[in-house]
Amino acid sequence: MTFRVGVIGGGQLARMMVEPALAMGLDIKVFAENEGSSAAIAATQVGDYTKISEVREFAKTVDVITFDHEHVPLNVLEALEAEGVSVQPPSKALKFAQNKLHMRARLTELGLPMPAWAEIKTADELNAFIAENGGVAILKTPIGGYDGKGVAVVRQASDAAQWLVNISDFGGSLLAEQKVDFVRELAQLVARRPSGELAHWPLVQTVQRDGVCSEVLVPAPNASQEQLNRAAAIAETVANGLGVTGVLAVEMFETADGQFFINELAMRPHNSGHFSIEGSVTSQFEQHLRAVLDLPLGSTDSVAAHSVMVNLLGVDDLNDFVSSYPKALAAYPSAKFHTYGKSARKGRKMGHITVIGNNPETVLADAKGAASVCLQG
Amino acid sequence: MTFRVGVIGGGQLARMMVEPALAMGLDIKVFAENEGSSAAIAATQVGDYTKISEVREFAKTVDVITFDHEHVPLNVLEALEAEGVSVQPPSKALKFAQNKLHMRARLTELGLPMPAWAEIKTADELNAFIAENGGVAILKTPIGGYDGKGVAVVRQASDAAQWLVNISDFGGSLLAEQKVDFVRELAQLVARRPSGELAHWPLVQTVQRDGVCSEVLVPAPNASQEQLNRAAAIAETVANGLGVTGVLAVEMFETADGQFFINELAMRPHNSGHFSIEGSVTSQFEQHLRAVLDLPLGSTDSVAAHSVMVNLLGVDDLNDFVSSYPKALAAYPSAKFHTYGKSARKGRKMGHITVIGNNPETVLADAKGAASVCLQG
Repeated sequence: MTFRVGVIGGGQLARMMVEPALAMGLDIKVFAENEGSSAAIAATQVGDYTKISEVREFAKTVDVITFDHEHVPLNVLEALEAEGVSVQPPSKALKFAQNKLHMRARLTELGLPMPAWAEIKTADELNAFIAENGGVAILKTPIGGYDGKGVAVVRQASDAAQWLVNISDFGGSLLAEQKVDFVRELAQLVARRPSGELAHWPLVQTVQRDGVCSEVLVPAPNASQEQLNRAAAIAETVANGLGVTGVLAVEMFETADGQFFINELAMRPHNSGHFSIEGSVTSQFEQHLRAVLDLPLGSTDSVAAHSVMVNLLGVDDLNDFVSSYPKALAAYPSAKFHTYGKSARKGRKMGHITVIGNNPETVLADAKGAASVCLQG
Repeated sequence: MTFRVGVIGGGQLARMMVEPALAMGLDIKVFAENEGSSAAIAATQVGDYTKISEVREFAKTVDVITFDHEHVPLNVLEALEAEGVSVQPPSKALKFAQNKLHMRARLTELGLPMPAWAEIKTADELNAFIAENGGVAILKTPIGGYDGKGVAVVRQASDAAQWLVNISDFGGSLLAEQKVDFVRELAQLVARRPSGELAHWPLVQTVQRDGVCSEVLVPAPNASQEQLNRAAAIAETVANGLGVTGVLAVEMFETADGQFFINELAMRPHNSGHFSIEGSVTSQFEQHLRAVLDLPLGSTDSVAAHSVMVNLLGVDDLNDFVSSYPKALAAYPSAKFHTYGKSARKGRKMGHITVIGNNPETVLADAKGAASVCLQG
């Protein structure tokens, strides 16, 4: 028999699902946006994922549809589900990933810790929220933001004049959130099967630069057992409460008094979980495939005491990082180099490096050192 | 830039090279024997590897040619090398893998420990060898044998009557070897770059059943440091002495007094090294790609104190092992399941399972237990 997974989106997340699919003998097919995508090796269809007819054609070739990204329109997914297609995570979960206002409302119902928030339709409402929250707010477009895009720090409504004028582009509302005075950012990954089984990885610390993840430290340094448990419980409550299947990443702020506040959700393998390819018995990519196929989940135990992942963000249009292999591999024989087959572009997520080991300082230094050689070109 | 590797042969070894190639962003292309091969996902050409014109066409699309198996005729490789194609391992090394008589002669020149052996052209020569070696010999066809095929235990020349009559089919000679009274079988893997860098994994114990590898224990239990060093030195001497590039597996017998005797060589990733996918910082498949591209080798440190690999050999024409995933994955969440996308057939190498950990008993029991669930279908 075969277990057939269809992935919509041909980015690096789809690419990194191909590796465990090959290992386990699962049949993976990718619906890519264009030729030459990161996951081109498994692409069986190239097309427009907003067109139901195209996605339907793809769905006929697989047992379950899952995603490299969260941008497939809900109406497309709902139509397929009505026709009996297994979509994982299902549209009823993805609607919370696609609209941050829906997400905040649902997390509030679940009683989960979050920044104060409000739906904003007018400048007056925004000014009132800012006044109630210490003179500053984080304003977000409810749909379409990622990697720092669609997010602004505002101290008065006029800071957001452009968005308020065009508010109908965002469905008529913006999301205002309290600016949390955090000491660091964390992420908790969990996987959930349609039949309910859950498995979580250790809490990680994410280091952001210009709104983009630059490093991930595993486990989150100096987290207490109580914090590790609390973070896992939060993520499991989100997964159960929103009906997420596959991998869910819950990004959180930690405040000086050790509290967690949910920042963002991602319903797919996530940059904060790339460490698990080498650092965990079961990687987030293998687990995602198991979960969406409703196969039993694998152990999320760590393979080493510490893992560090450093992103390789494009520096210019020339440095593809692969060119650095002769130097970088020689200097860092324990580092695991990943590149995504993308052409070079400033700021683009081009690859990452993971180092695992028992000494957290060495692991961090090696991961950063290896990245540094690559960045020099 | 891109590093482009061409693999001749579409079996599971090529398939398992695709995974690290994707991870590292190396461009891998496979020349497969037929459609629907194990490595079909990376197949860019399907044809006959004994035809120089077809292999030449393939070679034009890559920077280096390497192999899933050792069966490409030497004249094909020599012709390509003469045209400037990088073939790794080169024909001058592969000739020793393709002809066991040449291999024995060269290993003898290198002074390496081996069973007594002789080239046999007649029944009289065979009877004389048997008489000199305790009344028994292992008789091998010098070319084409694998997994127990092309090997016979003979106590008199008449036991080999068929081979002796057809001796011209084997190039006019057979290879007789002393039957070593061994206590166990071992394998030592090493990788070598064209520029000379070497890296070896820990010595492993292989358990054979009916001439086929069934289990691999890593490291070889109770091996002394002196033995580990000696095994590595033997493999490195072979790699250097035969000019091997890429991964080399040296299969050896261990006798009761702790001596090693070289049994077989394989100049490619080998079944005895599958454990390294999870058990080592750098797997044999990633290392093979690095080595044939003359890129710096990765660390061969172990990720855990113990690894055990168990092969999944076909039991009949129905059990594809994948069907067992719902049961097997649930029962053994720490086991890593590999299947090769092959249709079921009795005795066929269909997949393998690896478990790593710190407790050798648990690791062995889990690997065998997981395989047992799969074998039950």
